[in-house]
Amino acid sequence: MILELADIRIQAGKQAEFDEAIQRGIAQTIAKSKGYLGHQVQKGVESPERYLLMVRWATLENHTVDFRESPAFTEWRGIVGPFFAGAPQVEHFALLSGSD
Amino acid sequence: MILELADIRIQAGKQAEFDEAIQRGIAQTIAKSKGYLGHQVQKGVESPERYLLMVRWATLENHTVDFRESPAFTEWRGIVGPFFAGAPQVEHFALLSGSD
Repeated sequence: MILELADIRIQAGKQAEFDEAIQRGIAQTIAKSKGYLGHQVQKGVESPERYLLMVRWATLENHTVDFRESPAFTEWRGIVGPFFAGAPQVEHFALLSGSD
Repeated sequence: MILELADIRIQAGKQAEFDEAIQRGIAQTIAKSKGYLGHQVQKGVESPERYLLMVRWATLENHTVDFRESPAFTEWRGIVGPFFAGAPQVEHFALLSGSD
């Protein structure tokens, strides 16, 4: 399993609209993609324009190839992209350890 | 519940030592602290010196006051601090939505 962390900054004052858009976008695209295992959307406390999208994928390629090279990626960016203040910073991680 | 995200960069080549130190440090300090609910340690795929420490706390103050102002915080920094390449970037987040 691989964790995708997308560190997203949106335009000021657009939180309510983005809250709706990101949840709708995930349901319509990411959650239907091959290898999708689960996700969380987290909202910044100190930085109210900052969001973390964390997606668990079965393999790295399920995100970087199967999703990003699919029409679903274009659809996803069409839904959430208009709110972005810049390009999200995206990297992948592997679990070292955890309590659960 | 509040998520603490600590974005950590360590010195090159120190991964094996840090893997041990961070797990020991969490067990000795953070996991025993008031309001601690759970944690994950994630290792970077693209950036092998990057780690994410994600800690779930009952309240923001359980981290910012109860833990950070306790002797346990000094102990924690003594265990993991020598590996840091710079100060970790730490912010807090609240769950908007998730699949589980």
